[in-house]
Amino acid sequence: MTRTEPCHDLAHLGHVELLSAKPQESLDFFINVMGMTEAGRDGQSVYLRGWDDYEFHTLKLTEFKTSGMGHVAFRTWSPQALERRIKVLEAEGRGIGWVDGDLGHGPAYRAKAPDGHIFELYYDTKWYEAPPELRPALKNQAQRYPARGCNVRRLDHLNLLVTDVTKTREFLDTCLGMRCTEQIMLDSGVEAGAWMTATNKTYDIAFTRDNTGTPGRFHHVTYAVDSREDILRCADIFLEAGVFIETGPHKHAVQQTFFLYVWEPGGNRIEIANAGARLMLAPDWKPIVWTETERKKGQAWGLKTVESFHTHGTPPV
Amino acid sequence: MTRTEPCHDLAHLGHVELLSAKPQESLDFFINVMGMTEAGRDGQSVYLRGWDDYEFHTLKLTEFKTSGMGHVAFRTWSPQALERRIKVLEAEGRGIGWVDGDLGHGPAYRAKAPDGHIFELYYDTKWYEAPPELRPALKNQAQRYPARGCNVRRLDHLNLLVTDVTKTREFLDTCLGMRCTEQIMLDSGVEAGAWMTATNKTYDIAFTRDNTGTPGRFHHVTYAVDSREDILRCADIFLEAGVFIETGPHKHAVQQTFFLYVWEPGGNRIEIANAGARLMLAPDWKPIVWTETERKKGQAWGLKTVESFHTHGTPPV
Amino acid sequence: MTRTEPCHDLAHLGHVELLSAKPQESLDFFINVMGMTEAGRDGQSVYLRGWDDYEFHTLKLTEFKTSGMGHVAFRTWSPQALERRIKVLEAEGRGIGWVDGDLGHGPAYRAKAPDGHIFELYYDTKWYEAPPELRPALKNQAQRYPARGCNVRRLDHLNLLVTDVTKTREFLDTCLGMRCTEQIMLDSGVEAGAWMTATNKTYDIAFTRDNTGTPGRFHHVTYAVDSREDILRCADIFLEAGVFIETGPHKHAVQQTFFLYVWEPGGNRIEIANAGARLMLAPDWKPIVWTETERKKGQAWGLKTVESFHTHGTPPV
Amino acid sequence: MTRTEPCHDLAHLGHVELLSAKPQESLDFFINVMGMTEAGRDGQSVYLRGWDDYEFHTLKLTEFKTSGMGHVAFRTWSPQALERRIKVLEAEGRGIGWVDGDLGHGPAYRAKAPDGHIFELYYDTKWYEAPPELRPALKNQAQRYPARGCNVRRLDHLNLLVTDVTKTREFLDTCLGMRCTEQIMLDSGVEAGAWMTATNKTYDIAFTRDNTGTPGRFHHVTYAVDSREDILRCADIFLEAGVFIETGPHKHAVQQTFFLYVWEPGGNRIEIANAGARLMLAPDWKPIVWTETERKKGQAWGLKTVESFHTHGTPPV
Repeated sequence: MTRTEPCHDLAHLGHVELLSAKPQESLDFFINVMGMTEAGRDGQSVYLRGWDDYEFHTLKLTEFKTSGMGHVAFRTWSPQALERRIKVLEAEGRGIGWVDGDLGHGPAYRAKAPDGHIFELYYDTKWYEAPPELRPALKNQAQRYPARGCNVRRLDHLNLLVTDVTKTREFLDTCLGMRCTEQIMLDSGVEAGAWMTATNKTYDIAFTRDNTGTPGRFHHVTYAVDSREDILRCADIFLEAGVFIETGPHKHAVQQTFFLYVWEPGGNRIEIANAGARLMLAPDWKPIVWTETERKKGQAWGLKTVESFHTHGTPPV
Repeated sequence: MTRTEPCHDLAHLGHVELLSAKPQESLDFFINVMGMTEAGRDGQSVYLRGWDDYEFHTLKLTEFKTSGMGHVAFRTWSPQALERRIKVLEAEGRGIGWVDGDLGHGPAYRAKAPDGHIFELYYDTKWYEAPPELRPALKNQAQRYPARGCNVRRLDHLNLLVTDVTKTREFLDTCLGMRCTEQIMLDSGVEAGAWMTATNKTYDIAFTRDNTGTPGRFHHVTYAVDSREDILRCADIFLEAGVFIETGPHKHAVQQTFFLYVWEPGGNRIEIANAGARLMLAPDWKPIVWTETERKKGQAWGLKTVESFHTHGTPPV
Repeated sequence: MTRTEPCHDLAHLGHVELLSAKPQESLDFFINVMGMTEAGRDGQSVYLRGWDDYEFHTLKLTEFKTSGMGHVAFRTWSPQALERRIKVLEAEGRGIGWVDGDLGHGPAYRAKAPDGHIFELYYDTKWYEAPPELRPALKNQAQRYPARGCNVRRLDHLNLLVTDVTKTREFLDTCLGMRCTEQIMLDSGVEAGAWMTATNKTYDIAFTRDNTGTPGRFHHVTYAVDSREDILRCADIFLEAGVFIETGPHKHAVQQTFFLYVWEPGGNRIEIANAGARLMLAPDWKPIVWTETERKKGQAWGLKTVESFHTHGTPPV
Repeated sequence: MTRTEPCHDLAHLGHVELLSAKPQESLDFFINVMGMTEAGRDGQSVYLRGWDDYEFHTLKLTEFKTSGMGHVAFRTWSPQALERRIKVLEAEGRGIGWVDGDLGHGPAYRAKAPDGHIFELYYDTKWYEAPPELRPALKNQAQRYPARGCNVRRLDHLNLLVTDVTKTREFLDTCLGMRCTEQIMLDSGVEAGAWMTATNKTYDIAFTRDNTGTPGRFHHVTYAVDSREDILRCADIFLEAGVFIETGPHKHAVQQTFFLYVWEPGGNRIEIANAGARLMLAPDWKPIVWTETERKKGQAWGLKTVESFHTHGTPPV
């Protein structure tokens, strides 16, 4: 199916549901170390948010027997856009059906991606209303700056592990209308990673090949802060809090994002990132293709990619 | 005309043509102080760019008898989107007609905004190809980081002075499909300023009331850098270069952008700005309305808005 | 008395005792907004510290009927250095006598400066021992990074209001062996301000003329943070906390320090500052003398000095 | 020899003479990539400086058949202090004798450190006088901010490779009056590194064990910039310039300095560093002793120390 014009049906990444077998430790990590705010709780889930996320929540932390991702959700630009996407998902045999929504949003349509990850699309949402003690001084901000821990600002993107990068890329292109901005192609011709966007961010989702061959795993979710200096301070804070720093801070060659990776107590990988003023503005951007040789050079300033980056995913194998 | 779905015809602000009666001094300012690169020259114009602008140029500096803006141009998402916009512009009686384009892009359609400013829309463009000595180390970057002067990264937005804010806002909404994200409403009911976007940036264009009552003037054009710290360093650089710093660095209350305003030798106001990780992601954002009383508080941390900000525009009255 | 060699008797500024008629509000400000730690309390005083102050405390907050400074204390390089200073203080008729010390240090010698401010000198001190929950991850750091509020790192300097700048400067030179690094001289020949150091910091104490003619008042005490970006974030935090921002963030022309001034609830002015990598290394530095004309240009990037800076001191007149 | 009071004879690190067999490439590196300024040239040497070094030069780049350090020089607090140090050097059998000085300073006294490195002490110096085009906007700054390349501010410290860390430490303590602030002690009882200061900087010189067993080699010289963000930008600049980045940017556990190491074209290791607001203020600081186990944890946030850090020195073995 060839598109005659770029698709603008997805507005942005909405939220990610993370699973944890250590829900209390995970919650403490997100609240006190990451500096997030609890927006509400329901059943086995706590709804969390960065201080400038406009919706009720962007992270749903759910108690589970193991780690990993429950689902990921994207908000559409309009109810009509949602209908259009559902039509394609059903035509492609990817649709699962409607769910009721939860504390943070209304009815959502679920689909299964090629590797088994659950994607939700929704338009009806709940805007966050800060209680008096969390009202910001400036009315164009969702919530008061917490001045606690890492003070993450907003959800940025997520990364999945997949057994077939190409299939997942085609699914996101065809069914969700996302655009691929950068890719890794191995010498063997196998596609090892892809970065895709639905916005002017250079990527909203990335996925890399799972070297263990296990389908449907989760790699990381990323929150954005305002500067690279903020990320250096986050590293100090993680060190003090005894959080395992997997790698960074450093600058990615792919997408040039300044990054820091840690593992939350439940085992899920969390990234803090800053993209500077880099945006994807070109409507006709051709995907940047990174070769195996280029990838072996390591990150932008030469840091070698840590081995666990290709193997550690959640749930563990 | 009510829109049933958000419009996505404009891709982004493309370039601004600035006029200067001191072309050599202005050029020296943009190259050596701002750290921009000359992409080419033609007739009385020099084409300039920030190091990560993907197009050939984002600033066309043209020798003229006085200062001000020649025209502003937006790139559309597709040829079809351009056709749709032309149809509306003509229906609204705003169309002027096609022009041939220049060194930086192909044919463009011109329109006249309510205050007389010239807007161009185009899709055919010329991607920048860096000569060998300016090729970047990372292939996902348009050009080598210059390591000279302010090192501005990319064009961000422009600001116009208008005699009727409401009319200009309605023009940008109806004819170009832009969304208003923030506004200033005086106690008298007069709209004194508006900020509009066609992207996930919180604004691509702003316009404020010209207190002198002169139509069609230019307020400023803004280049983005990667951090607030970059802007503090820019202030040091402007000081050393003897460039007039009008106000800043400080943080706007409206849109929360960290800013620094200077006047280039030709008299045009130039801003260096950083938005942190702030983006406009909500498809259903309601414009933030700032009252006269709120504006009197000054900028975010209390700096009073300088008087010249409401009167200095180009060309001078 | 001419010195044949530079004096090295003072090691550094030790602590400042601030008075407040709103002790609870002031304490909340220092703990929750400034991010300081309570080290202990005794009588009407609470002992406070930045996270990398090596001594027990650097700020003694004392309940009093009004605001202002109780005393300021400098630590000497050795017991012998203390004896030498006392000898000079007594010879100059400035000595008051020994006091017992308090929770934070041992016996100290008190002297009265020309304008009536109380100075203490001491060598015996109490090194801070962090309780288990505040122990840092790195053993070369005094205390865990709090990740709360402004996270001020360490005491930097203080500023006094005086009726006679020259007399105070001569006192600090002759009696304490401090060196003057920068000065303000009015066209009338009156010295309006001086900055003096006992270390490689470019100043440990400053004093400016009290335009109200009141002797013995306090202007501000300053805590250092690691970057200018930290100070911009502090401004966000003060805004959210409803703390009055008097002026800044901006860069001083004198000493080039990046600054931010606020008033704590008790009325005392507090500065957050960063000096970058600037140090006073030259043993034969000649004081920089700023003229009245130069001062009228405002701060480094042009911000005019606010009127209250010359009149607001504590206690109020 | 026990000291009854701390010694204050050394004022600061004055300059380092680096040798290069590729003098033109090295010079281009220091001028265009590091952003340093040529102050003068004489014979086979070029005198270089950071923009806020107050002396004529802080780096003397000398053409030689190989790489390495020619000498390192410290300025004393006074002529008398110089005499005192010479007396001790001669008593300890370390003295070599007077040399005439060069373009940057007057007569200097040379001594040989235990590993054979040449140390110079001097008091007579030449303050830098900026030519008109390099005069700064603010009179308390040595030279105009260059706005070119890395813009290093000032010389910070140097690091030597030695065969016997303890002997070198004792030499610097006894003969030069420096204080040890941090040390590495291996499980075997061998001292593997030491950091010493003559100022309020936490170190002016460091030296680590040369794993190749070669005496008298050079490890690196360090220039300071104002912020950690500056160092991140330096990494971008080194990448663009094709300069080999050995390791970093990252934060040292020892001394907590934020660092970036590169090799200049002549092979000498160069560091760009920022210490934040960290200073050595305590007159009675006890050296922090790092164990072998602690060192194996890597740098502050976990980056492993690269192998070349223990073997690459100049001249090459």
